[in-house]
Amino acid sequence: MKLFYAPGACSLGIHILLEEIGKSFELVRLDLASGAQYKHDYTAINPKSKVPALVRDDGSLLTEWPAIAWYLAKTHPELGLLPEDLEGEVRTLELLDYMVATVHMRGFTRIFRPANFTPTNADEPAVAQTGRDVAATGFNLLSQALGAKAYLMGDYSIADAMLFCLEFWAVGRANISLPANLTAHLERMRARPAVQRALAAEGLT
Amino acid sequence: MKLFYAPGACSLGIHILLEEIGKSFELVRLDLASGAQYKHDYTAINPKSKVPALVRDDGSLLTEWPAIAWYLAKTHPELGLLPEDLEGEVRTLELLDYMVATVHMRGFTRIFRPANFTPTNADEPAVAQTGRDVAATGFNLLSQALGAKAYLMGDYSIADAMLFCLEFWAVGRANISLPANLTAHLERMRARPAVQRALAAEGLT
Ligand SMILES: N[C@@H](CCC(=O)N[C@@H](CS)C(=O)NCC(=O)O)C(=O)O
Ligand SMILES: N[C@@H](CCC(=O)N[C@@H](CS)C(=O)NCC(=O)O)C(=O)O
Repeated sequence: MKLFYAPGACSLGIHILLEEIGKSFELVRLDLASGAQYKHDYTAINPKSKVPALVRDDGSLLTEWPAIAWYLAKTHPELGLLPEDLEGEVRTLELLDYMVATVHMRGFTRIFRPANFTPTNADEPAVAQTGRDVAATGFNLLSQALGAKAYLMGDYSIADAMLFCLEFWAVGRANISLPANLTAHLERMRARPAVQRALAAEGLT
Repeated sequence: MKLFYAPGACSLGIHILLEEIGKSFELVRLDLASGAQYKHDYTAINPKSKVPALVRDDGSLLTEWPAIAWYLAKTHPELGLLPEDLEGEVRTLELLDYMVATVHMRGFTRIFRPANFTPTNADEPAVAQTGRDVAATGFNLLSQALGAKAYLMGDYSIADAMLFCLEFWAVGRANISLPANLTAHLERMRARPAVQRALAAEGLT
C-alpha cells in the first residue's frame, strides 16, 4: 500500500494505523505549502487534492480519513482497531465524523489557514478565533467522551489515532491547552511504538 | 425514536431514511433561524447545537449524519440500505464523508450562511462563491461516482439520501444546475413515496 501524506497533517493518523498494522508500505510526501496537491501529477491520482489518500495493493485509491481507517481496521480484525458490536461501531463513527468534519475542518483549518476562509487579510485573526471556539467546544466534548478511560472506546481504536492528530495540533501548533484527561491521552499515544515510528518518519521528533 | 430536524436541512436525509423504514417516529422541529439550537432546552439534549439528532428508543442520543444513517441501516438489514460487503461499506462511508464534511459543510454552508465564515459583510459574496466552487467540484465528482447507475452504490442506499439533500439544495435553494445524471437521480428520489412523505411532513411541497 502507498500513503500520500504531508508531515503532521491529518494523514499522520492514518500513518500511525499503518504502523500499528506493521506490514510494509510506501510513503509519498506531498508539499502542501507549495501547492503540490493542486498539480496535475497529484490530481490525476486524487482529484480531491487532499491527504490522506491510500493506494491499495490492487491499485485502487481510497480517500477520506474515516473510510480509510475503517478499511484498515476491518481488513486487520486481529488488531481489534474497531469495536466488534454495532453500538461500538456507530459510536466510533460518530466520534470520527465529529473530529474530522467539525473539529478539524471547521476548527483547526480556520486556525492554520484562515486565508482559505476570508479574502480580507485583516479578518484572519477573527477567523482563527472562530476556529479556536470550535476547537474549544470540540475538546470539551471529546474530554467528556474519553472520561476516565484510557482510550475513547475503552480499548485502543481508530478513533484514538484521529484524536491524537487534534491533540498534537493543539499542543504543538496552536498553543491550545488541553483538559487533563486529553493530555494524558496524548502522552499515552506518544508512548506507543507505532506513534513514535510515524512521528520519526515524518520528521516530527 | 425521535428526530430533531429543521425543514430542508440535512436532517431531511435522515427523515427520509426513517420514512423508508416505516416504523412510527416523532418529529421535533427546531427553528434554526431564531437560534433555537443554541438555547438551553436543546443544548441540554445535544450540546453540538446541530440537527440531525436522533433520540433512540432507549433514550440515548445519536448525532452526525453518517453515524445515524449507519445505525438505521444496520438495525434494519432487511431494507438493504447499506451494501453487505466490506468494499461496499467502505465506499459508502467514503461518499458520505465527502458529501457531509466537504460538499455540505465546506460548500453549501458557505453559500447559505456566509456570515458564519467572515466578520465583514462585504465579503459574503466572495465566501459564497468559494462555497459554489466547492459544490461544483463536489457535483462533478459525485456525478462520476454515480455514472450510469440508478443509485450511488448501484442499489438504493443511505448515500442516496445524503446526495438527495445536496441536489435538493442545489436546485431549490442555490440555483446550481446539476449534471444530467444527478438531475435524473434527484427525480428518481422524488418519485420514492418515502421521499414524498418526508418532504410533505417538512412542508416542502
Ligand atoms: N475530509 C478529508 C479531509 C482531508 C484534509 O482536509 N486534509 C488536509 C490536510 S490535514 C489537506 O490535504 N489539505 C490540503 C488543502 O486543502 O489544500 C478527510 O477526511 O480525509
Ligand atoms: N457534521 C454534522 C453536520 C450537521 C449540520 O451542520 N447541521 C446543520 C443543518 S444542515 C445545522 O444544524 N446547523 C445549525 C447551526 O450550525 O447553527 C452531521 O453530520 O450531522
